[in-house]
This record gives sequence, C-alpha cells and structure tokens, in this order.
Amino acid sequence: MNPLERQVLDAIDVEGMLSFLCRLIAVPSLDGEETDAQRLVAEQMERCGLEVDLWEIDLEDLRRHPAFSEEVPRQTALGLVGRLGNSAKGQSLILNGHVDVVPAGEPAKWHYPPWQGTLTDRRVYGRGAVDMKGGLCCALFAAKALRDAGVELADSLLIQSVVGEEDGGTGTLATLARGYRAAGAIIMEPTDLAVVPAQAGAMNFRLVVPGISAHGSMRRQGVSAIEKFLPLFSALQELEKARNARIDHPLMARHQLPYPISIGTVRAGNWASSVPEELICEGRFGAAIGEDPAEARHRLELAVQTAADADPWLSQHPPTVEWWGGQFEPAETPMDDPIVAVVQDAVQSLTGARPEIEGVSYGADLRLLVNEGGIPAVLFGPGDVRVAHQTDEFVPIDDLLIVVRALALVAMRYCGIADD
Amino acid sequence: MNPLERQVLDAIDVEGMLSFLCRLIAVPSLDGEETDAQRLVAEQMERCGLEVDLWEIDLEDLRRHPAFSEEVPRQTALGLVGRLGNSAKGQSLILNGHVDVVPAGEPAKWHYPPWQGTLTDRRVYGRGAVDMKGGLCCALFAAKALRDAGVELADSLLIQSVVGEEDGGTGTLATLARGYRAAGAIIMEPTDLAVVPAQAGAMNFRLVVPGISAHGSMRRQGVSAIEKFLPLFSALQELEKARNARIDHPLMARHQLPYPISIGTVRAGNWASSVPEELICEGRFGAAIGEDPAEARHRLELAVQTAADADPWLSQHPPTVEWWGGQFEPAETPMDDPIVAVVQDAVQSLTGARPEIEGVSYGADLRLLVNEGGIPAVLFGPGDVRVAHQTDEFVPIDDLLIVVRALALVAMRYCGIADD
Repeated sequence: MNPLERQVLDAIDVEGMLSFLCRLIAVPSLDGEETDAQRLVAEQMERCGLEVDLWEIDLEDLRRHPAFSEEVPRQTALGLVGRLGNSAKGQSLILNGHVDVVPAGEPAKWHYPPWQGTLTDRRVYGRGAVDMKGGLCCALFAAKALRDAGVELADSLLIQSVVGEEDGGTGTLATLARGYRAAGAIIMEPTDLAVVPAQAGAMNFRLVVPGISAHGSMRRQGVSAIEKFLPLFSALQELEKARNARIDHPLMARHQLPYPISIGTVRAGNWASSVPEELICEGRFGAAIGEDPAEARHRLELAVQTAADADPWLSQHPPTVEWWGGQFEPAETPMDDPIVAVVQDAVQSLTGARPEIEGVSYGADLRLLVNEGGIPAVLFGPGDVRVAHQTDEFVPIDDLLIVVRALALVAMRYCGIADD
Repeated sequence: MNPLERQVLDAIDVEGMLSFLCRLIAVPSLDGEETDAQRLVAEQMERCGLEVDLWEIDLEDLRRHPAFSEEVPRQTALGLVGRLGNSAKGQSLILNGHVDVVPAGEPAKWHYPPWQGTLTDRRVYGRGAVDMKGGLCCALFAAKALRDAGVELADSLLIQSVVGEEDGGTGTLATLARGYRAAGAIIMEPTDLAVVPAQAGAMNFRLVVPGISAHGSMRRQGVSAIEKFLPLFSALQELEKARNARIDHPLMARHQLPYPISIGTVRAGNWASSVPEELICEGRFGAAIGEDPAEARHRLELAVQTAADADPWLSQHPPTVEWWGGQFEPAETPMDDPIVAVVQDAVQSLTGARPEIEGVSYGADLRLLVNEGGIPAVLFGPGDVRVAHQTDEFVPIDDLLIVVRALALVAMRYCGIADD
C-alpha cells in the first residue's frame, strides 16, 4: 500500500459507518416499502460528498423490459446513484447494494429485535445487517473516506443503492435503463470475503394443486389437495437430486447442492374441518450456470406433469406451474477479468491472505449487470450468506472493516487517481 | 293423519318459507358475525306468532363451562328461542337449528353466488342452504302453520336459533345455561331425512411442526418444516386406518370411515426463497361413540410423538399438538327413545316409507343437548350433508317440504293438542 492508500484507510469513519448501519436497519425496507430507506441513503450520500441522482423509477416503462420481474407490485420506487468523480476514461466502477430486505418472520423468535441494529459480540444484528445493508454501508463509507482524504479519482465511482433485489431486480434494472454503465462492478452481497464472479440462477415458481372440498367428517367425499401435493413434492425432490448429481462448473462443484429446489411457502384450506380444495406452494428453482432459463423451467414443468400423469386423479385434474417474481438467470464473469484480481489484491493487501474465487448457488443482481448491462461484475461483501433471511441475522464487524477498506483500495486502483 | 293434521299441513306457507330462506342465506352469518341473522330470525319468529326470547349471551360466564369451546373469539352473541304454547306437562319439544355458516371459499368457484339464495332445479343454492338455514326455516314455518291453523299445543314447542355451532356450540350451550330443557329435541341438520340418534365426536387440533429457516439457495443449512411434516402426516393417516379398522357400533358400522382424521388447513413459510421455519396445520379428529374424549386426544398425541421420536431431528425439536375450537364429544340417544319413533312415524305418514335410523361421522350440537342437557335428541333434516361446507351447497326443495310437514306433525303428536 502506498502512502495515499494508507491515508484513505486512516480516514475511514468506522463509528459513523456502524451508526449509520444501525439507523438503516431500523427502517423496515421490505420489498415495495423501500422509499424511506432510499431517502435516508440519499441523505448519507450527500454527507459523503457524492453527487446524488435520486429519481422516480418509471415502473410502467421498466415492466416492458424482458428482464423485468417482480413479486411485490410497486406503485412507486426510487432509483439512487451517488457519484464520486466526474471524468470518464473508461475505468469507472460501480458499487451496488440493495436496501430491500425480506420479512422478519416471528419477531419473538429473534434474540435481538429485527428492526433495530444491535452491536454486540463484534457483530451487528438485525434484519438486513448482512443482506445487505452492511455491504452498502461499506461502499458509502469507502467513498466518504476517499472524499475526506481529499482523493480525486481519475474515473467515476458510482454507488448504487437499489430497491427490489429480493423480488426481481427492479432497482438495478432501473440503473441500466437510466444509462449507468461502468468498466466493472462489485455487488456487496455477503460472500464471506470471497470474490464471486459466477452465480446460479434462481427462479420463483408457484405450484397450484387442486382438490375437491368436502366436510372433514366425510373426507372421502372430497380430495385433499394436501395429499395430492405429496407425489409432486417427491417429484421435485427427485428432480433436484438428478440435477445436482454431476456438476461440471469448476466454481460450483465445491457445493454439495449448487442448484437446490426449495419450497418456501405452503397454503392450503381455510377451515380445519373442511377438506382443502386447493394447495398453493411457492418455491425457488436453481438454474445451472450456462443453462438456458427457458429450458430449466421446462424441466421443472415436465417433472410436475410426469408425476401428475402417474396419479389417476391428478392426471384428470392437472396441477399448474406458474413462474412469478424473481426470475434470476445464471450469470458469470470470466475469472480472468481485471475486476476479479483487483478485489483479490485489495483484500490480500489488508489481510495477507488471498481470497478464494467462488461460485454461489443464490441469485442476485449480478446477472442484470453482466447479462443485461454487459458489465463485468463480482459479488464481494461482508458476512456469511447463510445467516441471510434468518432470525438473528448479523454481520461481523471485522468483515465490515475489511470490506470498507478493500472497497476504498479497489476504487483507487481501479478508477485511478486524477493527475494534479 | 287426522283432519287437524291435514289442516295444519294445508296451512304451510311454502312460498313464505322459500322466500325467507333466501333472505337468510343472503346474510353472511359467518361464525362471530351472526347477530344480523339472529335479528332477522327473531323478526320472523314474531311473524310466526312465537313468543320470542332474544338475549345477549353472557360469554364471560359461558366460557367457564367445561363443555364450552370456540374457534372465533366473539365479543358479543345473541341467544334466541321462540316458544309456541306455554303449558308444560313434560312433553315439550325443542327444534334446534344454527344460523352460523362456514366461509364460502373462492366465490368464483361457485356456479351460484354463495351469499344469495338461488332457486333452480327444485333446489335452493347458497352457503348455509343445507347446513342449516334450510332446516331452521322448516321449524319456523312448521310453527307458523300450527299458529295459522289455530292449533294450540298441550306443551311447549321451543324453536332455538343458535350461533356458533360450527365453531364449538356456543349458542346451544347458552340455551342450556338459560335453563331451556325439553322432553325431546330435534336438530335439523341435513340427514337426508334419516333419523340420527348417534354421532361421532369431532375435535379440532392444531399441529405445529418446527423447522430452521435458511435461504432457499442453501436449503441444507436449514430444516424445512414441510419436510418434517411428512412423517407426522403419515402417522396420522396410519392412526386413522387403525382406528377405523373394526367398528362395533351398529349405527356406525355402515360407514366406510366413521372416524376420519382430516387435515383442513396448512400454513408454512412466508417467503418463496426461504426455508420455512414452521408449519402449522389444523384438522379434525373423529372420536368414536363411547370413547372418552380425553383418551381419544391422547391417542393422537401419542401417534405424533411416536413419529417424532423416530425422526432424529424431530426427536430433538418436538412438534406440538394443541386442541382448540370445536371439541365435540360423541353422543348417543337410545334407539328406543320415543323421539326416534315419533320422527320416523311422521315421515312415514308423509312419504309412506319409514326413514332409516343412522349414526353419523360428524359432530354437531347433539352432544350438548344429550350429554350436557340430558335431553334425548336426534338429528333430522333436509338435504345431503355431503354438500355442506362445499361450493354450490344446496338443499332440495322436496326435502324442505317433507321436513316442514314432518316437524309440524311431530310437534302435534309429541307435545299433544290442548284440550278445549
């Protein structure tokens, strides 16, 4: 590290970052309700010295984009990009983070309140701490350190605070629609400090299983949609097994189950003593890197249909599969793209250890930047994704400290320093 | 039939009955929302010449009764009894019908609107038509015919319009608490014109199955409550099979499945791409005639516990069984009680065929009148219970015509005619 880099690292406002992270966690920015969080981040961007572009996303227009998907129909959504440096020599860098979070579930199950940042045991607890308000704060305070240290970048650093990542990528798609591009991008999703240029696809589906209602005391007069769900659930389990039996991709092979099929919700019936006439379950279907999403979808539909055909009643009353909400294509940035090495180098400068290059099984906005925007991108961020979407979600403070520093170094090295 | 009986039958206001039934169906008297329906029935009782007792049920007091159960916590509920005749020679008769109905489910699945009485094909369609506003209207218009024909009964005919039958029996229990008793009772539940002195118990249960949440892309980091539900569901299916393998009761042996265990609702998870950390299902558990309800409940709990013990994870994270809402004990009136024969005789007078004596697999208010009130009682009413709780619920008009006539005959024969 050179003296300027050390100067920037010394300028990092750790206390300010943790304090802002707690304020941001306290805004319950569930999908569709991100406006307050976006305004709060915009204010912070101003305080960090960024030139702020806060705009009302033209949702009507965006919904016509072929890559658009959403689960929560929004009436309104804000786009937000903060820029540091104005020149454009072709080495601009995007740091992308989403403010939307998944529901907290039953608050009583949390040891720490979900809608409040709690600092304890060198961790920050709260919904969104790791996925991914923590990572977003690292980017904001890396920029602030650059500004506070008086660094002028040779090319633009663009910090994107986006909505709707969890439910389809509305916010990141909106940055592309507004024309934002860069030579490279980092999404601060929790990677446990690994550098992730490849990710599986994830496509939300809904399986609707029919039944025939009847009074429970004469249940054989009806057909329970719950019973009819069982062979379909088995078929999905078998399909998952078959699809994960042999994995060729070098970055995915390390995973026990790189392309899971997971049922997240089940709803059936509305009265304890009636036979349920319908079961609706929703889940996510992992698509393999390199796999055509349409073909992947067809494979799931076929598995459901084959199982239904094998059941005398379902063959006459077929279940339906719908694809809805997040339709995350798989995506990949070549491992030899400069963005991969620059992040590795930065972390190594700080920790002495070179971070792993990995592929991940979960979908995120990477595919929009890479596939739609043509921007080489990696995921790189603090914390363990295994605690995302869980009760007692947390991000380790040590990881935040490494990532905020690494992002500051990457910004300087990737964008370059302006000549005096 | 004697001339007076013929005179009463001729006085039956069929058009008025069908028209009032349609008005009553149009009041969506879901459990907890029965007040408007009770007021409407009270008005009709006045018009039928009944002395009306409409009272605010003391729910706080009633909840202390050991036989009390409810699913919908009511703030308020009305009791309603209409009386014809005032003497009491020990042969008074109760005609009991409930105004509460189960939800309609998806209205779009109905060919006829659920909250409107539709007369077509000699049927009345609508939620509650058969369960059991149709039967209640038969009682009201049997009483009206007696009044219109100038008949004075030797003993009281008590028409009880009750709330909360579907969710535990609040209304009928309230009539007992207010002191109403009689020598015999008929509940106009749909029996397809059979006379039913015996019924199985039905007890609502809730099974809560734990899991561990995780992101669906790493589902093996979590434990799906849906997967953990499967062995428990199997265990309930096995238990049902065992409990129905050999049936001794002469009135129950004709049923293929007299004591079903039926799951009516399932709820799991709140996000398509999270592993669900909890599954809650609700169902009804059939208790055998003569079986001690506490022992029956224990048998279900044991089956769940045994299945959980066989699963390494569930044995450490046991599911729970709760008993809630309707806890309908089995109940039985001796087949040689006079109320049985008088109903059979009346139907035979009208149709020439002697109705069957049957036992039924569903719970109703019979057990409150019999077990708590000590009142010999039967179910007897129009229509087929298999269409109860279903879409396109209906009651055949021909059945209504037989039941309204039969109830008028039974009232005269059971209560007797006052001496001039």
